[in-house]
Amino acid sequence: MKKPSVAFQGELGAFSEIAVHQLLGDDVKLVPCPTFDDVFRRLSDKHVDTAVIPIENTLHGSIHENYDHLLEFGLEIVAETHVRIAHNLIAPPGVPVAKVRKVYSHPVALNQCLKFFSDNPQFERVTFYDTAGSVKMIMEERPEGGAAIASTSAAETYGARILKRNIEDDPRNFTRFFQLRHPGKKRHQPEGRACKTSLVFATGNVPGALFRSLSALSLRDINLLKIESRPLRGKPWEYLFYLDFDGSVDESRVEKALGHLSELADFIRVLGCYPKGT
Amino acid sequence: MKKPSVAFQGELGAFSEIAVHQLLGDDVKLVPCPTFDDVFRRLSDKHVDTAVIPIENTLHGSIHENYDHLLEFGLEIVAETHVRIAHNLIAPPGVPVAKVRKVYSHPVALNQCLKFFSDNPQFERVTFYDTAGSVKMIMEERPEGGAAIASTSAAETYGARILKRNIEDDPRNFTRFFQLRHPGKKRHQPEGRACKTSLVFATGNVPGALFRSLSALSLRDINLLKIESRPLRGKPWEYLFYLDFDGSVDESRVEKALGHLSELADFIRVLGCYPKGT
Repeated sequence: MKKPSVAFQGELGAFSEIAVHQLLGDDVKLVPCPTFDDVFRRLSDKHVDTAVIPIENTLHGSIHENYDHLLEFGLEIVAETHVRIAHNLIAPPGVPVAKVRKVYSHPVALNQCLKFFSDNPQFERVTFYDTAGSVKMIMEERPEGGAAIASTSAAETYGARILKRNIEDDPRNFTRFFQLRHPGKKRHQPEGRACKTSLVFATGNVPGALFRSLSALSLRDINLLKIESRPLRGKPWEYLFYLDFDGSVDESRVEKALGHLSELADFIRVLGCYPKGT
Repeated sequence: MKKPSVAFQGELGAFSEIAVHQLLGDDVKLVPCPTFDDVFRRLSDKHVDTAVIPIENTLHGSIHENYDHLLEFGLEIVAETHVRIAHNLIAPPGVPVAKVRKVYSHPVALNQCLKFFSDNPQFERVTFYDTAGSVKMIMEERPEGGAAIASTSAAETYGARILKRNIEDDPRNFTRFFQLRHPGKKRHQPEGRACKTSLVFATGNVPGALFRSLSALSLRDINLLKIESRPLRGKPWEYLFYLDFDGSVDESRVEKALGHLSELADFIRVLGCYPKGT
């Protein structure tokens, strides 16, 4: 069987690549893309079989840009997974900690290792466009005393050494990823696994509109897992709501709840129904 | 009267400084801080009179880290404002567009100007730790052909020239900021201005718990403006909810709603009550 091709944002060794392997195993053709827009476009144009995107992070919140792309491109969520964002100090083989002077990484990663830098004031922080890309660079260009902060997977990908593991300030740093595919293919519901459904809907700015919309779920004892409102800047006082709830669209009570919600909302789109991820 | 001192994250000229001036005018003592944690700490330790922090962005979503700090430090929200994130190509005086080769900025800003870079393939993107900091650097170090991407305010602060305005891909890029102060000082409610209240509450993982909690507001016709759930990673299946709604804690129906919500939630904290911002 042909290896499935998977688009993701970032360099090889990026946290998205870890999510790809958690979701699809190691026997895949990796297609790294520079931007999220490219990832969606490649799948939408059928240049790849599937795609993996981050959707929310425990420290930083939801990635609204990717919710926008989900609406725009009309792709379907088929799976989810959570990746712990663990940062490591990484250097080329033969460079010991004592020789490290400059530490390259994405500014978000550098900012998530502040305690490490205050404990090691001899290290200069240097910003780079990507965490995995900083490992690639120190291996190719070997800047004197140069190290990087990235995932263990980035160290493996580029043959670099991990000098110090888990240097992040907050270990509760997880990113949730979705696997996407072209809609319309027949869904084969995994037997006996609990499912989640994700959807987006809009209501007008009527007091209680959200409450009434949620009644479509709560009156049927459907458990809400996530809710988030997003103001639509172009349309003041109108909102989009993102919901995740326990249950599959194949269940009768979910089907009825979606029908009821359609009556109450101005707009509704089911983004996907997928097994609860680890 | 003594100028109020205001802590904010970033360099002088950062988008947070624009929010400071929108909220407090120009007659303030600016106290730039390297991290959000420092901003909260300075206000909490009473080294400054007030502080201004970003809380959500239309493209990127809520800044959960700052919600965490609001809970941890127990400071009070007293005002809000929205700043449009407009990016500009900025160079030292005497450097024309034709001489620009390298463009320095924070990776998030560089990624928000992708169309500009694809229209101008002669420009090399170089990541820097901060947008305003990149303007400071090109003015101080004058790297050959060096320009920066930052706010107009950063250009003014460092005496640089704006070569091209509004080069961002998406003009619907707004950041909402809160002004904070020490709690306990007497609030003087601005007469005749509509108010908003922000709060955080937690419920157990009981189906319908959120719906019942929201009934405390909707049964009193209180209009919900924002809702967001946040999974608590340390405590699986427990959630925090952030809510904003129309109304002031001085109104009787709001007072009653908060009492009712306290009955239904495991935990509740009012973060502040403040005039609706522009």
